[in-house]
Amino acid sequence: MTETKSTAPVRVIEETSAYWRVVARMDASPSLCVVVFESANPDFYLAHFDLTGKTGNIMTAVGASGLPILMDTFVRLTKSPVVSIAKIRGCVRGVSSEFVLACDMRFASRENTRLGQPEVGVGLHPGGGGTERLPHLVGRGRALEIVLGANDFDGDTAELYGYVNRALPDAELDSFVDALARRIASFDRGAIAAAKNLVNQVSLPSADRLLDAFTSFGNTLTWPEAQQRIQALLDRGLQREVDFETWWPAVLDTLLE
Amino acid sequence: MTETKSTAPVRVIEETSAYWRVVARMDASPSLCVVVFESANPDFYLAHFDLTGKTGNIMTAVGASGLPILMDTFVRLTKSPVVSIAKIRGCVRGVSSEFVLACDMRFASRENTRLGQPEVGVGLHPGGGGTERLPHLVGRGRALEIVLGANDFDGDTAELYGYVNRALPDAELDSFVDALARRIASFDRGAIAAAKNLVNQVSLPSADRLLDAFTSFGNTLTWPEAQQRIQALLDRGLQREVDFETWWPAVLDTLLE
Amino acid sequence: MTETKSTAPVRVIEETSAYWRVVARMDASPSLCVVVFESANPDFYLAHFDLTGKTGNIMTAVGASGLPILMDTFVRLTKSPVVSIAKIRGCVRGVSSEFVLACDMRFASRENTRLGQPEVGVGLHPGGGGTERLPHLVGRGRALEIVLGANDFDGDTAELYGYVNRALPDAELDSFVDALARRIASFDRGAIAAAKNLVNQVSLPSADRLLDAFTSFGNTLTWPEAQQRIQALLDRGLQREVDFETWWPAVLDTLLE
Repeated sequence: MTETKSTAPVRVIEETSAYWRVVARMDASPSLCVVVFESANPDFYLAHFDLTGKTGNIMTAVGASGLPILMDTFVRLTKSPVVSIAKIRGCVRGVSSEFVLACDMRFASRENTRLGQPEVGVGLHPGGGGTERLPHLVGRGRALEIVLGANDFDGDTAELYGYVNRALPDAELDSFVDALARRIASFDRGAIAAAKNLVNQVSLPSADRLLDAFTSFGNTLTWPEAQQRIQALLDRGLQREVDFETWWPAVLDTLLE
Repeated sequence: MTETKSTAPVRVIEETSAYWRVVARMDASPSLCVVVFESANPDFYLAHFDLTGKTGNIMTAVGASGLPILMDTFVRLTKSPVVSIAKIRGCVRGVSSEFVLACDMRFASRENTRLGQPEVGVGLHPGGGGTERLPHLVGRGRALEIVLGANDFDGDTAELYGYVNRALPDAELDSFVDALARRIASFDRGAIAAAKNLVNQVSLPSADRLLDAFTSFGNTLTWPEAQQRIQALLDRGLQREVDFETWWPAVLDTLLE
Repeated sequence: MTETKSTAPVRVIEETSAYWRVVARMDASPSLCVVVFESANPDFYLAHFDLTGKTGNIMTAVGASGLPILMDTFVRLTKSPVVSIAKIRGCVRGVSSEFVLACDMRFASRENTRLGQPEVGVGLHPGGGGTERLPHLVGRGRALEIVLGANDFDGDTAELYGYVNRALPDAELDSFVDALARRIASFDRGAIAAAKNLVNQVSLPSADRLLDAFTSFGNTLTWPEAQQRIQALLDRGLQREVDFETWWPAVLDTLLE
């Protein structure tokens, strides 16, 4: 019932095969009801997009649905009959934030959560559904603050905004999520799938909107302004120094000084 | 201005004539501005769907709009020029939760509220608008937690999620709702109706979506898995023992053990 | 980066030239990234619609988009590549509430905020986007409470409801908003504009809906019931006495007694 993902501190999302394999396994299992995504490293939940240019096939590969592989994977996660729960500790930024936004539910450590969409501070913008899923969850004003402010959000603020379902004291997070996951897993798979499908009908963004964001994100990667900011971040230690990787959004407003 | 509904503990919604009569009276009154729905029994606000099979005409009767009678009633409540306020104390589950979701506003006792959609834990799913109205109110993640977790929500959590407008200390609930209802009732009925209509244009689910959920709910009632869970609940005392009726969602994850 | 607007206590919105000029200047500046709207008077942020009949050209003038000038201005504000932040202290009611709802973000003084849509209590209804923008931000139930209850909301409740992004202690409001505005202003203008445009695609109301509300508002202004309530408010001191202007929504439920 539980998928554990180990994430080394400075490891980044170079390609989507890890995501893709998990979702493919989810859909292939006839008895699986619930998947909980957690990290073996309490400081880093899942890494952001690779900014060194080693993006592998992430911008070009196409999934079974005909959509780009990253979108295809996230969309399949949202439509899967299997329920996905993100149990969040540590840093969850950029495409990782978009991964948890594609999960069915999000529960965060009150003391240990750094959740955000820092792309705009790097001269880019979210391209994996953040700009499409956040407004429905938190409203336009808070979505614009998250996306344009490019800051980290702690557990309490993420809960207040509806970015996560709720923040729990770190010591209670595991037992809460475990009880909820086991509870749902005890229910009838057909009833779960039918209910989730009905909610999806009135709450998922359209593929058109997701594609627009993905295509526009691809463009921003080529902008000189973005390249300059990315280089400044790499020079300061991004994807190389664990300490900097922990708090780098804090320097985004002085990046070019 | 105030409609008081008395609900015996283990009485269930067998047919919709009570609902229907109230809404018909609301629409027929040329001077009525506000209706407050409260329960004379502080432990039970309104009962869930009858699970003994005595569903009367609820799945087959058709209302004035051509929609099934339950949907027709809830939809008329949302579109009525009369403002509806649910003042919530005690257990409010399943179709009762969907009734308060069809009301214009919801205020809950902070200490004494057990609000939820337990259908999925019974092998069914919400069929009276819960899956359509909750995502707009609380966002997709919290809607899926409410619907798939099939748990009770207390006043504080319901307020945090936006499931209710706000939770108030039980001792202040009556005076707060009374003041708000009398305030609105002092305003011009034409201005109220015009304003509610404008809000409705951007916030009500479509009849297509509501019909899909209702039809799918009818199907789940025939599923053997649902029948098995329903029988287990009836064996344990559902709709028979007041004590069990108070906390039965707590056993849903061990129902078939 | 910061626009300061001084608003005399009993000064009201007679015409939209002030709004219009600011938005025109925003769009004309090739380097401007962020505008913060604040009031030099801590008791009044911005005034409500003129109720003495001196509405100037506000109901008849047409903006560059072909929409009525007030709508045109608010719509341009939402679609501008420049980011708008409302820093709220004091009274913000009616069309002023609709102005801050058209801003990209809203931050309010916890101790000193009186935010609301009192129109229905005057026999009118919001006509500048309130009924269209609030349901997306706060959900249908809370939107109906705000619009039909016609009451003031303090900082804490506005934050709980999502009416504002967050409420901050008054002593921290300036430094918080200043830091956020300077942070965003340090980012690339193209990235900001692209990200805001993506969020807008899934969060802005349609022009059709906004026009319906504006047209209906124009009708309510001619209703005898509204004229009677407006006269009663003017007799009591509206737009004339600073003290009454501070708390007038409190008397709306006894206006005709």
